[in-house]
Amino acid sequence: MNRDGCLALDAADPLGDFHSRFQLPAELIYLDGNSLGALPKNVVEALQRTVTAEWGDSLIAGWNSHGWIDLPQLVGEKIAPLLGVAPGQVVATDSTSVNVFKLLSAGLELRPGRRVVLSSRSNFPTDLYMAQGLSELLGESRCVLELTEDERLADAITEDVAVVMLTHVDFRSGRMWDMADLTHRAHEAGAIVLWDLAHSAGAVPLSLDECEVDLAVGCGYKYLNGGPGAPAFVYVAERHQSILRQPLTGWMGHRDPFEFSPHYQPAEGMNRVLAGTPSVLAMRALEAALDIFAEVSMTALRSKSLALMETFQDLVDGCPELAELKLRSPRDADLRGSQLSYAHPDGYALMQALIAEGVVGDFREPDLLRFGFTPLYLRFVDVFDAVETLRRVVADGRYRAPEFRQRARVT
Amino acid sequence: MNRDGCLALDAADPLGDFHSRFQLPAELIYLDGNSLGALPKNVVEALQRTVTAEWGDSLIAGWNSHGWIDLPQLVGEKIAPLLGVAPGQVVATDSTSVNVFKLLSAGLELRPGRRVVLSSRSNFPTDLYMAQGLSELLGESRCVLELTEDERLADAITEDVAVVMLTHVDFRSGRMWDMADLTHRAHEAGAIVLWDLAHSAGAVPLSLDECEVDLAVGCGYKYLNGGPGAPAFVYVAERHQSILRQPLTGWMGHRDPFEFSPHYQPAEGMNRVLAGTPSVLAMRALEAALDIFAEVSMTALRSKSLALMETFQDLVDGCPELAELKLRSPRDADLRGSQLSYAHPDGYALMQALIAEGVVGDFREPDLLRFGFTPLYLRFVDVFDAVETLRRVVADGRYRAPEFRQRARVT
Repeated sequence: MNRDGCLALDAADPLGDFHSRFQLPAELIYLDGNSLGALPKNVVEALQRTVTAEWGDSLIAGWNSHGWIDLPQLVGEKIAPLLGVAPGQVVATDSTSVNVFKLLSAGLELRPGRRVVLSSRSNFPTDLYMAQGLSELLGESRCVLELTEDERLADAITEDVAVVMLTHVDFRSGRMWDMADLTHRAHEAGAIVLWDLAHSAGAVPLSLDECEVDLAVGCGYKYLNGGPGAPAFVYVAERHQSILRQPLTGWMGHRDPFEFSPHYQPAEGMNRVLAGTPSVLAMRALEAALDIFAEVSMTALRSKSLALMETFQDLVDGCPELAELKLRSPRDADLRGSQLSYAHPDGYALMQALIAEGVVGDFREPDLLRFGFTPLYLRFVDVFDAVETLRRVVADGRYRAPEFRQRARVT
Repeated sequence: MNRDGCLALDAADPLGDFHSRFQLPAELIYLDGNSLGALPKNVVEALQRTVTAEWGDSLIAGWNSHGWIDLPQLVGEKIAPLLGVAPGQVVATDSTSVNVFKLLSAGLELRPGRRVVLSSRSNFPTDLYMAQGLSELLGESRCVLELTEDERLADAITEDVAVVMLTHVDFRSGRMWDMADLTHRAHEAGAIVLWDLAHSAGAVPLSLDECEVDLAVGCGYKYLNGGPGAPAFVYVAERHQSILRQPLTGWMGHRDPFEFSPHYQPAEGMNRVLAGTPSVLAMRALEAALDIFAEVSMTALRSKSLALMETFQDLVDGCPELAELKLRSPRDADLRGSQLSYAHPDGYALMQALIAEGVVGDFREPDLLRFGFTPLYLRFVDVFDAVETLRRVVADGRYRAPEFRQRARVT
């Protein structure tokens, strides 16, 4: 594969036009959409309208006249098709962390007499932290977090387990759990599953309903492109909704918030997972970003994602200068999400040097170079140029310069 | 007082120029800034820059290069002077509801052996709901919410009480608690105080440090003008910070979030009240809105607020057609925040008719017309015109038309 071959792939790419829907700096190749999605151009206009024509002109009336009050559901329904779920089961609200807390607590209540939250030691830390916070609050007699190695996880799903909490696509390696199989195993043991879809939603096809998933959370600012710190989302299977109890019982989850009753009564359906007042600006940005997904199928996105990753892998594999990079993602594409991670003994400095050359991936401890592939706005020629830049940076050894070892606050 | 007198007051008003810093619809008189603050013009530009020049151009690097990671503290420090507190004690994060949950739980932990959260039956419902959610989660052996009438509250602060949770300015009546006195009484009984400043911050001068307040939360979208659903804020007195434990232990509250350790360790200081990733767009809007407060003193704002309310009251009192309106706010201005509430037997319809005439207040059950006075952008002539419109709407009885009885979803 050479550069012209990549240009030919772009010319034939049925998703090729979507690149122009994003504002991308001309000098950058962005392989970090799995950390923060790029800016969809329609978000600029949507926010401008929300600020001046909605907030500015309508003021308090906007809650009714512009439907702000329905944004958690409206945005949720735009996410639902990406999760493969029927309507009425997804809302956008709060952060992933806060939503994990709600659903862990709810999951424990759905399985009285059980106290174990089972997860993988490699799970994304904030999910584990929230479980730890809940365990500290409730005491170990009611909630205990058990962590296993990935390889032993399936066997650790015993009849003590109340909730199996896993991130579907691992943030370090990109390894993807078999959602159908793990969910089935959890149910066989009488446990609830809580999937974190942070690195899955908008990246890989999902079918939560078909897998009979119980609970899920996910992130609005990665593949969904909702902007830094965008609202997260919550999925609760319809069969659990009427009995679901979660502890962050704020007024937006009340049956009739504007009755201003002093007594909490949960709303029917999904609204009971809401807590406080959501940011309308953040919701509108995410809403606009999601509109792009209405024009494309997850199958088409997955096909291109796989082709982009295969191109990247082939180019790296064919490059003798890059022999020191060791693939830490599953080689079998069916077993991973939309990222490739490579170990390198000087991974941090190498990633900083690469970023300095305009190829943006990121670094994860202890030694991982992480590259995200976002088929909506990444081109095959970008992949070619990225690997060529990587080759140059490694070949001339510039990454060994001291300036690339200085740690940034956010990595 | 006639209209010319009001125009003269505006001409002499030292805060008169601030009106032009807000985008206000020309045809409206807005007396609902206590529900949703008006749009500061500098927010439009700040958001535009954040979206295109920060998110769009810098992408993931924005967390470092534009300081997004420090926004909770940066915004918190801009709120601190409005609360009368020294630096290092305020962060902006999550919603008021979620923050109430964190601090109630933390307050209970600060008073082991006590289980009572004492509040007023008239407190803003979401605060009560969050206490109910915590109580349901922990069980009544660890947390029980006790509600009293306002008049009996002070006497109910016994040595069983762990946390006294009050909203400083009542959302219905505008009645303002004596923060120094109640805090002192709580401390005498060995209790922690948690003040909700939703209707106080930016509306009345506060001195939390001097009052030796323990914990407080507040709202970014009312008098602070941060936009619909703006981030809320948290205050924790410096003396409690190193031992404070709150259960929503997300990665932003970790000592070193980007170490990605599987074990939670709370950050030093205020950061430990953070949970998940905040919305950068929402934070930037609030930040810009707060910049206006740096140019004005809370004393000057309070003086104008009192003068605006006095003008409104005098005009209503002097108007025979409005005799059916009964003031439900304290007549003594020292005992209320920056709003006036009047009962009227047909309050809902009357407020809808008033809004239809371009005077926007709001209605609160069962019969309250609520008028907020925001001295940054409200003029004396607006007050005159508002009362004149109110007089007309009452005098000609148009509010009795059926169309004004149709309830909106958000009131």
